Amino acid sequence: MLANKCQTALFTRKFSRQLFKGYAISWKRCLTVSVEEPKKPIVTTEIPGPRSRSLLQELTSMQQASSVQFFADYEKSVGNYITDVDGNTLLDVYMQISSMPLGYNHPAMLKALADPVNQKIIANRPALGVFPGKDWPDKLRKILLHKEIAPPGLSHITTMMCGSCSNENAFKTIFIWYAEKQRGDAPFTREEMESCMMNQTPGTPRFSILSFKGAFHGRTLGSLSTTHSKYIHKIDIPGFDWPTASFPVYKYPLDENIRENQQEDNRCLAEVEELFEKYKTEKKIPVAGVIVEPIQAEGGDNHASPEFFQELQRITKKVLHDAALLIDEVQTGGGPTGKMWCHEHFNLESPPDVVTFSKKMQLGGYYHVKSLKPKQSFRIFNTWMGDPSKMILLEAILETIRKENLLHRVTTVGDYMLKQLTSLQNEFSTMINSIRGRGTFIAFNCSSPELRDTIIKKLLSKGIQTGGCGTATIRLRPALTFTEHHANIFLDTLRSILKQ
Amino acid sequence: MLANKCQTALFTRKFSRQLFKGYAISWKRCLTVSVEEPKKPIVTTEIPGPRSRSLLQELTSMQQASSVQFFADYEKSVGNYITDVDGNTLLDVYMQISSMPLGYNHPAMLKALADPVNQKIIANRPALGVFPGKDWPDKLRKILLHKEIAPPGLSHITTMMCGSCSNENAFKTIFIWYAEKQRGDAPFTREEMESCMMNQTPGTPRFSILSFKGAFHGRTLGSLSTTHSKYIHKIDIPGFDWPTASFPVYKYPLDENIRENQQEDNRCLAEVEELFEKYKTEKKIPVAGVIVEPIQAEGGDNHASPEFFQELQRITKKVLHDAALLIDEVQTGGGPTGKMWCHEHFNLESPPDVVTFSKKMQLGGYYHVKSLKPKQSFRIFNTWMGDPSKMILLEAILETIRKENLLHRVTTVGDYMLKQLTSLQNEFSTMINSIRGRGTFIAFNCSSPELRDTIIKKLLSKGIQTGGCGTATIRLRPALTFTEHHANIFLDTLRSILKQ
Repeated sequence: MLANKCQTALFTRKFSRQLFKGYAISWKRCLTVSVEEPKKPIVTTEIPGPRSRSLLQELTSMQQASSVQFFADYEKSVGNYITDVDGNTLLDVYMQISSMPLGYNHPAMLKALADPVNQKIIANRPALGVFPGKDWPDKLRKILLHKEIAPPGLSHITTMMCGSCSNENAFKTIFIWYAEKQRGDAPFTREEMESCMMNQTPGTPRFSILSFKGAFHGRTLGSLSTTHSKYIHKIDIPGFDWPTASFPVYKYPLDENIRENQQEDNRCLAEVEELFEKYKTEKKIPVAGVIVEPIQAEGGDNHASPEFFQELQRITKKVLHDAALLIDEVQTGGGPTGKMWCHEHFNLESPPDVVTFSKKMQLGGYYHVKSLKPKQSFRIFNTWMGDPSKMILLEAILETIRKENLLHRVTTVGDYMLKQLTSLQNEFSTMINSIRGRGTFIAFNCSSPELRDTIIKKLLSKGIQTGGCGTATIRLRPALTFTEHHANIFLDTLRSILKQ
Repeated sequence: MLANKCQTALFTRKFSRQLFKGYAISWKRCLTVSVEEPKKPIVTTEIPGPRSRSLLQELTSMQQASSVQFFADYEKSVGNYITDVDGNTLLDVYMQISSMPLGYNHPAMLKALADPVNQKIIANRPALGVFPGKDWPDKLRKILLHKEIAPPGLSHITTMMCGSCSNENAFKTIFIWYAEKQRGDAPFTREEMESCMMNQTPGTPRFSILSFKGAFHGRTLGSLSTTHSKYIHKIDIPGFDWPTASFPVYKYPLDENIRENQQEDNRCLAEVEELFEKYKTEKKIPVAGVIVEPIQAEGGDNHASPEFFQELQRITKKVLHDAALLIDEVQTGGGPTGKMWCHEHFNLESPPDVVTFSKKMQLGGYYHVKSLKPKQSFRIFNTWMGDPSKMILLEAILETIRKENLLHRVTTVGDYMLKQLTSLQNEFSTMINSIRGRGTFIAFNCSSPELRDTIIKKLLSKGIQTGGCGTATIRLRPALTFTEHHANIFLDTLRSILKQ
């Protein structure tokens, strides 16, 4: 890793000397690539500091920007550390809402972007559904459908750009499949073709997607209809009347609450069955598909047992329902649970029908079983259909994950974190509880929302960036390059805060 | 322009010699930057040729790919010419469904991507709503809100990634504004906060967006509910019961049908008024906003008069309705009509409330008036909120448009094309008619859908890529760098086909 960095630094220095002769940009600007991670966080101002506050004022004159925490200096950020415009350097255990798998300025990504062949791919963005580039099928095969990357059993891939549009198009794929099963080999009727143009039945059918309380699947109008994490995301926005089942709310520690948690699984699964029936018979909005996160992230890092997911799949695939199971791996996919896809932890009887992704994967999209492939063109389509420039980054990321055995590291570091956090919990059981996680996808609850917010603020003031979710939860979303050394900085800081 | 290219070639050659020493990639791969556009198209095989057909077979094993026309070699493509994998070089008058403003491998874009500072921006993609980079407010101000770029009167900007999500989030912004007007200064009620979590009224209100027959505004479930161009886009997909008004269908030539076309405007505007009333009083799904394209593109390049748009704005803004007017400039924005935004041709009484964009602008987003800015954070939000890597390209594009006075060129070349096409129409009036356009955003109808498809195929076999829209229309969507020389190649080829 170190050797790698030095090589890249040397390469970048030579390259930039040559490159900028006569181009008014100093080659010194490139040298930060060679900078190593700092040993620990450095905090010199309050956060946000004066420069951040001034930039926020500027941004607020152009848009609603009150969600901004601070302004970053991405040229100076490196690895697991993010530097802000006021010179503070923070250990980033949140990584842009879980979307940076290798941290900042990773040499493998910078190397890929320095390649002029790749620069041409970025400059010439095609309409992939009509005029794909010569390498596109090969890239899909070797990068996204690589046997170590694709979810086992899923042979088909559609690329998109973000999590919301991946879920929206996955819904459409499910609706098309569901309608085709009912239509059989019959062609579209004239009535269907005409009525759909005015959003009326039968061409525009009343089908639904079943989702869960606490779920987050995106914010466009279709995906938002399956999102139920916070009211501020939904209030005042029209939505579809689609069914929402309870998601298990477990008692922790799990090994002391086995029977209660099994009952909780059963309660939620019974609701799923009821909603299938109610929306079919009573509401006449039959459920074509079920969408579920393997771990509800935005909703509070809510876990459910492998048995819950196995039984959910059985219910969904019952002859009586014959719906599709969509597992939304937008936040869990790409390695943070120690496997490429979190649902690989569940030992499902058969592959899920659809798996959506985005975030760490750089581009959006979904894998699916062959039977869900639409028969006609232009039903799943848009101008860009993804973005080859993101595939360049994804290729560099996946190669690094393989070469550096990062999934193994995630598992080891995650186990270490869980163990240490558990002993912290025993020490401070009135303040934190319900430690849970897979890999480094870890969370714990605080005894109140106020305490949660206080702890996040204190961590920040001591140079550690984390994120909240649910009502009183702190979630950790480090890069896959997070080590025990980083974990210790986090743990020591958390301990010192809890001690106060 | 020529000097520019040579500079870039020299720069790239030096740079690549240095760069690839020991990197196994030959520097020769970079030399295509210096290649000039060919003098004319070169066709050596049928299209798609054998290489394209073989790649299509490969792609089809992984996804529904029957919309693919051919596979391109983007390394070899240059300017207005696209080269395919079988060695054919086509004059591209379609430009990736109107999304490439400067054609292929433009030196200004390649130069921007060769800058290591920009490469770091691409590698470190932030969650813009939480941790924007230090330059972000400045870039928004100087690039998107530049006084020659932003639509006159619109001071606020939200960035997104594509046309569909721009429209979806613009709808949300309109719904939030509409609900806030009704709520006044009152806070959210508990009932609203709770009911919205289950997609039920009053928290999830029954508001609508009025759209037009023939419109295309995207394919995610919200935007698809306002799309009415082709049934294959909509059939089997659930949608909202939102109102759809007639869009004017004009008789051509316009100067011989003034009275009829005015009556057509009035008929459509009366429908808009009726639908406002019907959806408010009878359906109880009041219209919060109206979405309209300045020229309906996908639906058949349907134009409407400035007076139509002026009156549509008056109806929308009436005290009785008090809805927002959203002009969708996803396809028309960024210069192809000879102005940065097509609605600038309409002399509206006041700025539209929202203008959405994508395609030629590289990233998606929307401009809006200040009054539509949401009061709370996280109501319009997602992980990425756009993509700074696209802003790098957009900056290079807009600088080129300014430096090379491309909007003026578009107007001049467009006028020339319209004049020449009109004389072709006079010569072959039984085959083509209804020539129309603004700038180089030009279209004409063929006397039947079959003839349209034949002409498009014959143009392709003679080395010219165009696109169809509506039922019997051929649309031209060249780059802004399209010249009279290119126009003559297109016109001569079309004449020779019509003569046969």
